[in-house]
Amino acid sequence: MAGFELVSEHACFGGRQLFCSHESVEVALPMKFSVYLPPQAQAGAKLPAVLYLAGLTCSEETFPMKAGAQRIAAELGLVLVAPDTSPRGAKLKAEADSWDFGVGAGFYLDATQPPWSAYWRMESWLLRELLPLLVRELPVDSQRIGIFGHSMGGHGALTLALRHPGRFRTLSALAPICAPSRCPWGEKAFTGYLGADRTAWAGHDATELMAEQDVAPYPGGILIDQGLADKFLQEQLHPHLFEAACRAVGQPLTLRRHADYDHGYYFVSSFVEDHLRFHAQGLAGAHASPGLPQA
Amino acid sequence: MAGFELVSEHACFGGRQLFCSHESVEVALPMKFSVYLPPQAQAGAKLPAVLYLAGLTCSEETFPMKAGAQRIAAELGLVLVAPDTSPRGAKLKAEADSWDFGVGAGFYLDATQPPWSAYWRMESWLLRELLPLLVRELPVDSQRIGIFGHSMGGHGALTLALRHPGRFRTLSALAPICAPSRCPWGEKAFTGYLGADRTAWAGHDATELMAEQDVAPYPGGILIDQGLADKFLQEQLHPHLFEAACRAVGQPLTLRRHADYDHGYYFVSSFVEDHLRFHAQGLAGAHASPGLPQA
Repeated sequence: MAGFELVSEHACFGGRQLFCSHESVEVALPMKFSVYLPPQAQAGAKLPAVLYLAGLTCSEETFPMKAGAQRIAAELGLVLVAPDTSPRGAKLKAEADSWDFGVGAGFYLDATQPPWSAYWRMESWLLRELLPLLVRELPVDSQRIGIFGHSMGGHGALTLALRHPGRFRTLSALAPICAPSRCPWGEKAFTGYLGADRTAWAGHDATELMAEQDVAPYPGGILIDQGLADKFLQEQLHPHLFEAACRAVGQPLTLRRHADYDHGYYFVSSFVEDHLRFHAQGLAGAHASPGLPQA
Repeated sequence: MAGFELVSEHACFGGRQLFCSHESVEVALPMKFSVYLPPQAQAGAKLPAVLYLAGLTCSEETFPMKAGAQRIAAELGLVLVAPDTSPRGAKLKAEADSWDFGVGAGFYLDATQPPWSAYWRMESWLLRELLPLLVRELPVDSQRIGIFGHSMGGHGALTLALRHPGRFRTLSALAPICAPSRCPWGEKAFTGYLGADRTAWAGHDATELMAEQDVAPYPGGILIDQGLADKFLQEQLHPHLFEAACRAVGQPLTLRRHADYDHGYYFVSSFVEDHLRFHAQGLAGAHASPGLPQA
């Protein structure tokens, strides 16, 4: 596998905010991602890292630009990684007709339905290409990687963490789509990417994945924040369903419901510090997880 | 004078991020601005406020979206106000042909040259309309207002503070255009807005305004941050000229030059906390300034 191209670089809180691109084999297109390297990276040691998955219409730029997370990462010595939200440039018919399907709406899975299956391979890109690349090319400790995300990216974080046991040591989400099989965004995406047969959907639905667990996959707990003035809460997000599934399998969950907060980055930025401290704490100390397999 | 329209509102760090519009008499068009009200505003008391002027191509959204300032304002109990950077919607010929002149490039002055003089009245809008409106309609203490800005907005902060003695109790800037009469951005803007006669320019040039002072206008000091990897530093910004002018009149200036930092918001966000703490300290305590005149 090749390395990556450094598109741009910006000093930020004593560290470096990088914007990167690489030729993805899985996606068969160039894929973009951003990386914040805290000042501690200069010492050369491998650092804990947190992957942030963004929501519909976002890109690898959204989180570094709007969340205000670098200050905290610089304090905690965390690497922050924010991938793009879909392939771009495939030129598939209708790929950009909707803001909630196609470009900017990859849903962090591998599509099985043509024409999407040729390019929309976000899960394989993230797990089989991007994470190994980060560990190989950057000061990232393969055994101390956490994951979180917002909205569609919260769905991505919850499902990828549950689908790949041990890969991500810590897990949290902000206003995640918790039960995509039961909301319009998820039904549209899953029908398009996975087909109309709903039996294929369960493996990408955080609530259904949690319900199938034999033991709590995150005994240290999962953190979710949700705004109560979020206009998507009622129809699209369904955190109460994920909450019930966690309770049923004994998974500790801290689900904080915040009056007045909406779905946007003024909400994300208000609580991102708590998430990064949660991940830093969970990623500190001994290397207990199985870590990444060899690429 | 009328009030303002609340375009949108977002809970943020326990306070409220507002996006507003009002019918400006000075500009003869609707003008936009954003306001962050910290949690302390709920108690009803008048709070200190800091006006942030943004740079070329920016809007009233740039600072609240990219600077990460609300967290600090919430801690310090500061109101943050970010006005738009020019009139919009005048439909003047060529108003949007350049990114550094016309729309998004008001330079915070009143144009004297047609056709710009009919609408581009940013100084009068800010001083004669927006500040009185803020004091009248929001929990803003007229006697505790500071000003800062970035790039073109740094020019705006320095010049408006020096042109209106006592109006702004505290003053700082990030990568400001310090001597617009002697740089391409300023020469283009001043020629277009003020005419080719350079004698009219001095009154809008921070370095020349400082050189004319009899006593230090800000005995408590002025804070300026500048990145040394800023691609505009050499040709456009000239902080050394403002530094020399301050020294000549005995104006205390803290000019910090930061290796590696560029001109963008990764630079601004890295140092905005220091600026807000500087303003909060200067705005604390007794009401020593003459304050705003009655509108």
